Amino acid sequence: MNATANRVRLGILGASGYTGAELLRLLARHPGTSIDALTAEKNAGGTVGDLFPHLAGLDLPKLVKIADTDWDRLDAVFCCLPHATTQEVISKLPPRLKVVDLSADFRLSDTATYAKWYGHEHKAPELQKEAVYGVTELSREAVKASRLCANPGCYPTGAQLPLVPLVEGGLIDADDIVIDAKSGVSGAGREAKQGSLYGEVAEGIHAYGIASHRHAPEIEQGLSRAAGRPIIVNFTPHLMPMNRGILSSIYVKLANGATADTLRETLAKRFAGEPFVRVLPKDRAPATRHVRGSNLCLIGVFADRVPGRAILISAIDNLVKGASGQALQNFNLMHGFPETTALEQQPMFP
Amino acid sequence: MNATANRVRLGILGASGYTGAELLRLLARHPGTSIDALTAEKNAGGTVGDLFPHLAGLDLPKLVKIADTDWDRLDAVFCCLPHATTQEVISKLPPRLKVVDLSADFRLSDTATYAKWYGHEHKAPELQKEAVYGVTELSREAVKASRLCANPGCYPTGAQLPLVPLVEGGLIDADDIVIDAKSGVSGAGREAKQGSLYGEVAEGIHAYGIASHRHAPEIEQGLSRAAGRPIIVNFTPHLMPMNRGILSSIYVKLANGATADTLRETLAKRFAGEPFVRVLPKDRAPATRHVRGSNLCLIGVFADRVPGRAILISAIDNLVKGASGQALQNFNLMHGFPETTALEQQPMFP
Amino acid sequence: MNATANRVRLGILGASGYTGAELLRLLARHPGTSIDALTAEKNAGGTVGDLFPHLAGLDLPKLVKIADTDWDRLDAVFCCLPHATTQEVISKLPPRLKVVDLSADFRLSDTATYAKWYGHEHKAPELQKEAVYGVTELSREAVKASRLCANPGCYPTGAQLPLVPLVEGGLIDADDIVIDAKSGVSGAGREAKQGSLYGEVAEGIHAYGIASHRHAPEIEQGLSRAAGRPIIVNFTPHLMPMNRGILSSIYVKLANGATADTLRETLAKRFAGEPFVRVLPKDRAPATRHVRGSNLCLIGVFADRVPGRAILISAIDNLVKGASGQALQNFNLMHGFPETTALEQQPMFP
Amino acid sequence: MNATANRVRLGILGASGYTGAELLRLLARHPGTSIDALTAEKNAGGTVGDLFPHLAGLDLPKLVKIADTDWDRLDAVFCCLPHATTQEVISKLPPRLKVVDLSADFRLSDTATYAKWYGHEHKAPELQKEAVYGVTELSREAVKASRLCANPGCYPTGAQLPLVPLVEGGLIDADDIVIDAKSGVSGAGREAKQGSLYGEVAEGIHAYGIASHRHAPEIEQGLSRAAGRPIIVNFTPHLMPMNRGILSSIYVKLANGATADTLRETLAKRFAGEPFVRVLPKDRAPATRHVRGSNLCLIGVFADRVPGRAILISAIDNLVKGASGQALQNFNLMHGFPETTALEQQPMFP
Repeated sequence: MNATANRVRLGILGASGYTGAELLRLLARHPGTSIDALTAEKNAGGTVGDLFPHLAGLDLPKLVKIADTDWDRLDAVFCCLPHATTQEVISKLPPRLKVVDLSADFRLSDTATYAKWYGHEHKAPELQKEAVYGVTELSREAVKASRLCANPGCYPTGAQLPLVPLVEGGLIDADDIVIDAKSGVSGAGREAKQGSLYGEVAEGIHAYGIASHRHAPEIEQGLSRAAGRPIIVNFTPHLMPMNRGILSSIYVKLANGATADTLRETLAKRFAGEPFVRVLPKDRAPATRHVRGSNLCLIGVFADRVPGRAILISAIDNLVKGASGQALQNFNLMHGFPETTALEQQPMFP
Repeated sequence: MNATANRVRLGILGASGYTGAELLRLLARHPGTSIDALTAEKNAGGTVGDLFPHLAGLDLPKLVKIADTDWDRLDAVFCCLPHATTQEVISKLPPRLKVVDLSADFRLSDTATYAKWYGHEHKAPELQKEAVYGVTELSREAVKASRLCANPGCYPTGAQLPLVPLVEGGLIDADDIVIDAKSGVSGAGREAKQGSLYGEVAEGIHAYGIASHRHAPEIEQGLSRAAGRPIIVNFTPHLMPMNRGILSSIYVKLANGATADTLRETLAKRFAGEPFVRVLPKDRAPATRHVRGSNLCLIGVFADRVPGRAILISAIDNLVKGASGQALQNFNLMHGFPETTALEQQPMFP
Repeated sequence: MNATANRVRLGILGASGYTGAELLRLLARHPGTSIDALTAEKNAGGTVGDLFPHLAGLDLPKLVKIADTDWDRLDAVFCCLPHATTQEVISKLPPRLKVVDLSADFRLSDTATYAKWYGHEHKAPELQKEAVYGVTELSREAVKASRLCANPGCYPTGAQLPLVPLVEGGLIDADDIVIDAKSGVSGAGREAKQGSLYGEVAEGIHAYGIASHRHAPEIEQGLSRAAGRPIIVNFTPHLMPMNRGILSSIYVKLANGATADTLRETLAKRFAGEPFVRVLPKDRAPATRHVRGSNLCLIGVFADRVPGRAILISAIDNLVKGASGQALQNFNLMHGFPETTALEQQPMFP
Repeated sequence: MNATANRVRLGILGASGYTGAELLRLLARHPGTSIDALTAEKNAGGTVGDLFPHLAGLDLPKLVKIADTDWDRLDAVFCCLPHATTQEVISKLPPRLKVVDLSADFRLSDTATYAKWYGHEHKAPELQKEAVYGVTELSREAVKASRLCANPGCYPTGAQLPLVPLVEGGLIDADDIVIDAKSGVSGAGREAKQGSLYGEVAEGIHAYGIASHRHAPEIEQGLSRAAGRPIIVNFTPHLMPMNRGILSSIYVKLANGATADTLRETLAKRFAGEPFVRVLPKDRAPATRHVRGSNLCLIGVFADRVPGRAILISAIDNLVKGASGQALQNFNLMHGFPETTALEQQPMFP
């Protein structure tokens, strides 16, 4: 994994969190990259192995501060910084560098919506215009051509993959969508917060951010584009006693004569040939444990007992397809690597 | 807990499962009962302590077969037998005995519906007419007067408590209800099944029985009575990596000018003074860990971002309010004990 | 639980942690006490229900600062404060008040040992002389007569109950003891620490504080008293992915012709009639899930394959017998209540 | 992964269990093999995807019965069958086939010891003589030359890696070894057993097979060879509420002037250059979560507080280095592949 002449020289900004570590896990198998800079403000001077002993065997550069990073030695960066910080950091990078940003900072194309949900004016509105929002399977060509890719949120990835094709096709009523999403706790990051303690998470569940979670406008942005008009959805996230995984149970009203079978066939056709999206056969239900550690998204479609309604269920690993895996998938596209490079591993079960 | 002259002499039929054990845990604190018979077909001759070492300290009778039970020595039974078996057993009991049945056998008043969902004709249709379906707070007086109480299913308890008063009041559209329910694995019982293994449950989630779970008609029965017309609902259960608890996230359409606040106030008024049902203040979300081990049901009500819609969330412990606790609550009513007897303990957290 | 004329008026100092909450859970069933003061420095002004929604149903006083506590209204306090703070607080209390201290501050009778392990001089050496160390079953009479009871650590409780009688009896070699202890994460408290996050604890195990844990000198103090000479032990704690429970696997060398059977009989005799300590029959192994939520200590004794050696295994709930339950047991003794008052509940399983 | 001219054509006998699935997960990345036969007696006719949906994306042959396997199309087999069955199956295979056996059937070179612990005469004593016991790092050359490799048990792998070099070097007293081992539940396999249910495993721990576990003679065999005389050890396994991982806490008495530092240096030297064994620096403790999903073994060495004693701690993933990973490592050696082939992936955390 050491640098060689032809490799893409990478930096990871914000390498002390779970998404940074997950990138390192995946990149360790990438034949076309070298990791030449890792930043971590509080842990500068230390090693990745100090923070993440499971990665102690990798030959990696020391952690440095962003201010001490030598940009000339890099071709591209993954940005895993906290929200808001990111806008300032990225806007100061040499424009030569390609960027995949895992934060929320460039996901909302409308900066007014951003300001409303994030509580401050966007600090890099010009850059926002350049950013390409990248649920890979839904915007592959745009990602390929992009310099700055706004990597989608975990929940929005799991919600948009099944919903966008159906809204585009007019097969469901876009004004009657309920998204009940269930996430593992790694989505909350590695920061020491009481709410993420083992004792507060294990052996119990609850909903949070009810009708107020910041991923709602991101999902609505994608569905509004698909519908060609403003869409509002119910999005209700729940915290699960598990490390990884998001299951999105989506309740929809059929439109234009569609049936559950129609929906399934439409999705199967749309995602045929996709390496990471699998539409399951009738009566098979996705489970997060079947995608754990992989970049897969499984989708199941079911008829509801209530006439005229259907149920969509998607499963992803929030740290892979919901974050670092999709970031790498987008990176591969942006740099001309086969899209599946370093993402080939099978899910780990149990 | 030993028998004395004035105590109600109890039998527990099917004491080798989780609900039987949970009854014993609770009854150990009941001052007005004695446990005089415990049946377990496969484990007859053994002790409760063999099956449940956590209860080894209790002074309990040996396990016997149902056929070897001396009914003359009993005043009442809790029936924790598998579905179908129950009908035959209960129909042969001396009619003098009061019965709380924790199986599904007497929950559906329409035996045709029973036959459709359970795959065989009902074997005790006369007895079915006598049975009183007992979500305690919703049918207290009928339970009090009953001899045979059909104890509700775990999911139906969590769903009906918030929904029935709102449907009765016409505050929500009974034709547009989505119930996304999430249960701990103890709901699947103690039988050795691959799907209940630690390796198949831990660190992952999935939906099951989608649009086909037997608790759907039970919920619909309750809502149909409340609405005065046949109601069909979406009910989608999910298996959670935890032992106990059911969280029901219920998505509803407001009716007749109601708002989320109206719903909350209506429920608060309806359940005012109830010892086990708590409607939470605005912006407070129920969590299953806040009811663990207790007979509580917590209910939260939230406005949706989608205009005209609201979100109801209820939390119960599936083994207590969802099974043995409510059974005991009903038993207390049937026998004239204060309703909270042996159910006073606080939830256990963490 | 409200105050009445004859009740013991209680204060809980440091009510915002897990041990404080656990005391409240248990005391809710105590007929002879009233809770008249609850302190929490950071959360003063708030309610217990804010911090612990599972206890929101209890009628409790508001949280106040220690400095604002009216000691005249109290007869006794449970002290759940952090180490070191405790010495200063307790030394300023009216000497009229009886105290059960759950911190480590008064557990080590030798203040020099305290200073060595805790990194500062003891701040209340006079009070230390008065303190009675209370593994209840091992020093019942002294506890009964005490004013200040130093409640033992969780690990030392699980280790001393099986070991002290055997060392006293000379049945094992006190110089050859290995204590491999395994604890649930609630033992680390509710403070937001990275090491206690769900993601850092779930689905993995590790040893910590190897040969350097502060409970080692506490265990050695007890064994040294029992042996009549200084004893050093191996004590190796491990963090388990579970909320509650400590399993201590103790490896010993037999002495003076003892066998595993001798050890078991000695312990069975010593703890005969004890309400909370159960020595299991031959070939039965304790499990932490069999004591969860209860004040029980289960002890199993096994012959080793290595000639001349045996294995002792004890199981407790670290928050009950390892903390708040034993504190209440000691409190009951100090105030003349039946020792089991408010500790009668059965373990909760699953 | 499809067959091509030069690939080693593989069969996996007993592909319906966790070790079979884990082999498939790993082999999916192996460039030099093709999977040409998969057996599963009860599930013959079905697919791997039916049993293990996480592997549904692999292009694999259908499951067949052993009796229906065409041995001519295979070069090698991994044998993941239950104990005892294995002897009969392997003895009937064409001797041309190379075999890695993951069962216990050929691990004990003394068939009398086998008979004693497994309760029946060994059915293939001649084949036993040929078998090479393969903790890879401890017998690499013998494995390389073998045709039938007896893949070690999970516990014996974690115990022997740190112990064998120290016993060989005379640095510890081989007669005074305590091995307290803690395993995730996947070690118990995928069979539906009450003891492996989520409800029986989650949120609790216990020891099992105390002084009677079948891995004890396997460990003793290795240590006896190292010591040159019969060794008996204390080996006490514990079941942990987690899917994967074994932590072995090993308590030893120093010999011949050794110190903890000596032990660490000896192990570091012995395993220098090994791709999968890492001896940690002083004061670093292994954790199972740092090896999850990988073929790594981490080893830490600590001075005990008890003079003259030390503590060794090893961590492995029981399904990888403790089973399928080591099997693949041995396979690679036997077939001339680089030893790390298909084992390069990093651990997965969290």
